[in-house]
Amino acid sequence: MTIVTKTERTKVKRLPARGAYDRETIYSILDAGFICHVGFVVEGQPYVIPTGYARVGDELYIHGSSASRMLRNLAAGVEVCVTVTHVDGIVLARSAFHHSINYRSVVVLGRAELVTDADEKYAALEAFTEHIIPGRWPEIRWPSELEMKATSVLRLPIEEASAKIRTGDPKDDEEDYEMNVWAGVVPLETFAGEPVPDTKLAKGIEIPEHVRAYKKRGQR
Amino acid sequence: MTIVTKTERTKVKRLPARGAYDRETIYSILDAGFICHVGFVVEGQPYVIPTGYARVGDELYIHGSSASRMLRNLAAGVEVCVTVTHVDGIVLARSAFHHSINYRSVVVLGRAELVTDADEKYAALEAFTEHIIPGRWPEIRWPSELEMKATSVLRLPIEEASAKIRTGDPKDDEEDYEMNVWAGVVPLETFAGEPVPDTKLAKGIEIPEHVRAYKKRGQR
Repeated sequence: MTIVTKTERTKVKRLPARGAYDRETIYSILDAGFICHVGFVVEGQPYVIPTGYARVGDELYIHGSSASRMLRNLAAGVEVCVTVTHVDGIVLARSAFHHSINYRSVVVLGRAELVTDADEKYAALEAFTEHIIPGRWPEIRWPSELEMKATSVLRLPIEEASAKIRTGDPKDDEEDYEMNVWAGVVPLETFAGEPVPDTKLAKGIEIPEHVRAYKKRGQR
Repeated sequence: MTIVTKTERTKVKRLPARGAYDRETIYSILDAGFICHVGFVVEGQPYVIPTGYARVGDELYIHGSSASRMLRNLAAGVEVCVTVTHVDGIVLARSAFHHSINYRSVVVLGRAELVTDADEKYAALEAFTEHIIPGRWPEIRWPSELEMKATSVLRLPIEEASAKIRTGDPKDDEEDYEMNVWAGVVPLETFAGEPVPDTKLAKGIEIPEHVRAYKKRGQR
């Protein structure tokens, strides 16, 4: 079990039992999603922007239009915080105070760097697509040189990071367990629905297996 | 249609057609979720933390333990960014470049203020619970004075804000529409599963209607 760097900034201080710092836990949470929230600071104001990501080894990649405000700011080499959250359930306690959410989240701190190496950038673009929907990359038109230029890719080493997890039953005060109130968890899950063909799709093109398979993959 | 303040900081610059600034749109996105990502800055480092929220009128409330690092920092009156994101589908284009995500997101910027008025704080706590699961509040034990003290509630006026929405088909380059590649959208939806009773639940307490009803509410 490899441990990431646990600093004062990433240590889970409240309810430390919920914190985890091993790469296996952190990577399983990162790999279960594809949208992160990136935090960065411009003139003292924090911004939090949802964006796609992929993990390759011990690196986290995010990308966007080279023209975007976020990417231009981040490419300058500022401190970022990348957070990934999965909401797994609503925890219904007997008291308002102990209501909670079951979740898995990861916070990665560091300085994002612009990827300038063409091969690394290309591999990251492939990873974005394959991370969202495995089997898609071989079937589609790959990025042109112009499209590569129009896209910025940033690399954030997964070094200073932590996971936070809550699972299971509500925890009520001892005297509240006698109350005549239903308590438990309402699980929440994200499912893929039936694929909707592009209205401009040429006739005779069937839904491919890698898209069909997503229905199952989404069921987690 | 009331418009929030559209500043240089919240104006959607890239693909401006995706931006919206009317309260109806912004509030419908806020009200469809209950977990936001709060961004704040401590010693130059941005932090992005998932947390619960509720909207009451033109105010956004977030809360947490009075002892938490986040709440202590925020209560000091710093600039925040609160972002709410719903991922609605995976947009599969013919080219890697035009792959995208259908989503609805809202960004609210401003200075969060600690709620010190007891009535406002109590109303916010009720709103958190009812926002997540309507009908729950009347059935549970309400916060004691001690629990009120242990909880910090922050108010962020919804003034400087914007929504960003992507819906519908992929947009490919004209020449790619002839490719023999399936294109379209895989819709993603969050569903509530069968409620799981607390292992310590007293016998004979049935799942109440407000919990059963959540199954349907989750289907959005």
